Amino acid sequence: MNSIPGIGTGGRITMAHGGGGTAMRALIDTLFLEAFSATPHAPQEDQARLPLEALAAGGDRLAFTTDSFVVEPLEFPGGNIGTLAVCGTVNDLAVGGARPVALSAAFILAEGLELACLRRIVASMAECAREAGVRIVTGDTKVVPKGACDGLYVTTSGVGIIPAGCNISIAAAQPGDVVLVNGTLGDHGAAILCARGDLALDVAIASDCAPLGGLVETLLAAAPGTRSLRDATRGGVAGVLSELAEASAVSLTLDETALPVRPEVVGVCDILGLEPLFLANEGKLVAVVPQTEAETALAALRAHPLGRQAAAIGTVGEAGPYGPSVVLRNAFGGRRTVTMPSGEQLPRIC
Amino acid sequence: MNSIPGIGTGGRITMAHGGGGTAMRALIDTLFLEAFSATPHAPQEDQARLPLEALAAGGDRLAFTTDSFVVEPLEFPGGNIGTLAVCGTVNDLAVGGARPVALSAAFILAEGLELACLRRIVASMAECAREAGVRIVTGDTKVVPKGACDGLYVTTSGVGIIPAGCNISIAAAQPGDVVLVNGTLGDHGAAILCARGDLALDVAIASDCAPLGGLVETLLAAAPGTRSLRDATRGGVAGVLSELAEASAVSLTLDETALPVRPEVVGVCDILGLEPLFLANEGKLVAVVPQTEAETALAALRAHPLGRQAAAIGTVGEAGPYGPSVVLRNAFGGRRTVTMPSGEQLPRIC
Repeated sequence: MNSIPGIGTGGRITMAHGGGGTAMRALIDTLFLEAFSATPHAPQEDQARLPLEALAAGGDRLAFTTDSFVVEPLEFPGGNIGTLAVCGTVNDLAVGGARPVALSAAFILAEGLELACLRRIVASMAECAREAGVRIVTGDTKVVPKGACDGLYVTTSGVGIIPAGCNISIAAAQPGDVVLVNGTLGDHGAAILCARGDLALDVAIASDCAPLGGLVETLLAAAPGTRSLRDATRGGVAGVLSELAEASAVSLTLDETALPVRPEVVGVCDILGLEPLFLANEGKLVAVVPQTEAETALAALRAHPLGRQAAAIGTVGEAGPYGPSVVLRNAFGGRRTVTMPSGEQLPRIC
Repeated sequence: MNSIPGIGTGGRITMAHGGGGTAMRALIDTLFLEAFSATPHAPQEDQARLPLEALAAGGDRLAFTTDSFVVEPLEFPGGNIGTLAVCGTVNDLAVGGARPVALSAAFILAEGLELACLRRIVASMAECAREAGVRIVTGDTKVVPKGACDGLYVTTSGVGIIPAGCNISIAAAQPGDVVLVNGTLGDHGAAILCARGDLALDVAIASDCAPLGGLVETLLAAAPGTRSLRDATRGGVAGVLSELAEASAVSLTLDETALPVRPEVVGVCDILGLEPLFLANEGKLVAVVPQTEAETALAALRAHPLGRQAAAIGTVGEAGPYGPSVVLRNAFGGRRTVTMPSGEQLPRIC
């Protein structure tokens, strides 16, 4: 059903849908507001209004984050640009220890985009937000001419509340701590790679795209001493760990044999000379916990649907003579330093 | 000075700048963080963290808004896509009666964009935010291949605090109220039209792009009974008033002779058959105030640098037999209904 009552039966986005006139109003009312059932915020105000007291409950800091999404293709096994946007922003809040409160979603649509495609993406965003227990309360729509955008870009922003006393930080890792991940590495990167189809790879790898708020709550309940959390998106786990070593002024030693990676992802990486450690994830986080809480933390992660394949992948040590570093120890005891690439192994990943 | 230490001397954006690696880090550190002097939020966390108590002071609701900006050209007399983004978001908060607290800025950059251009835009965003008394505290950068974006899109989101007891709403206008604007109409739309240069118009019209937070404070101090405020961007004053009539279930009568419009804007509109009432503004708001406060409100607006040419342009009446409407009365007493166009007179205006 490509036509939307009130916005024409053409089934495609036109410049008029971005013009601030009746066509745009109809698109917002019939497609966006309906899906996000954001009580059309106190009629059509230009901003959502959220009662502070109720929302702050027990928290003392406001967390605020934003991300643009330009992934190509728009839809792929395991998700689409919309679920990526919702999960990405929810996860950026969660890894700060924040309870996600509300999201905004701003769409840049290309003239000619199929309404059916937009409808699918918006519906899955609403579904994903419900799953994450957060509401999409405000948004914006712009339309650019054919060719001035690859169909659709989404920018989500999020606000959350950080409980008093919660001080998770990428700068808080200490020698002796243990590094955990909640599952297999590189699934999202490999999924996009295969979905692009320019390589004749006949493997269907699904993105790990998922909202991690619940998993983080479970982890923090089991390991209240948790020092650092970070979702491992662009740049992969390697990217996160380099920043973490830098920010905490420590050195990290990873056990290559302990890294959980799907066989099909290993396969894709072998063919293309990529490393799972550098591939993007959209439902994986790196957690640094005190040694004393490592076992309980790992057990808690594994007990959660999004952490079944959680693993301890390394330990934190003093920074070496040349400063902070990330070192990978392989099966034969060989050691090599993990250095950040200048760019990414794969552009347009999120 | 096109080169940026650490991000290469090519002077242009490359895909690497969006890859999550060292090139992106360098771009963020040397260009964005430096300009926005966002204390690199508690080192490189994925979210800004703002102390709630200090920030809430006297307020009881959180205002949250977002807008994407795709204006073409990127730079024009009176502003650029960056100042537009900061003002647009600050103004969306201000017209809700909210004190702007923090902004986020997410950039989608096209491969090949000149760093010098990006630097100019980012610098003016920082300047504009200072002027508006708000900080840009978090952001994101993505890079898309040449042609997949017209150089640069920006999405800004904003959070603000609404003082207890402030209930400005587009649904609050009542019969007897007076409709005010803070200055000349259509300047931004006309400026973009001329800046595009595809019409050989030799007039230099500057956009009215400006942050209205201070003006709104002044107005609310003088006219605490103010019912409705709305910045008149896409769709112009006509767009805002149609929504207002609808939301408040009233009819509005405008006095055509009272509409403040620059002669050069009248000229451009005459040549192209456009109407200033429908042209976009980026530093103009519509205010609906009780008749008893109209004079003080107007005086207060005129006393503010951004309101010198403020005017009372119409009155609010009961909805007619055919429901809410907006009617324009001309010099000869002739009356015609103002109906919203389906699209906009001019695409890519913001």
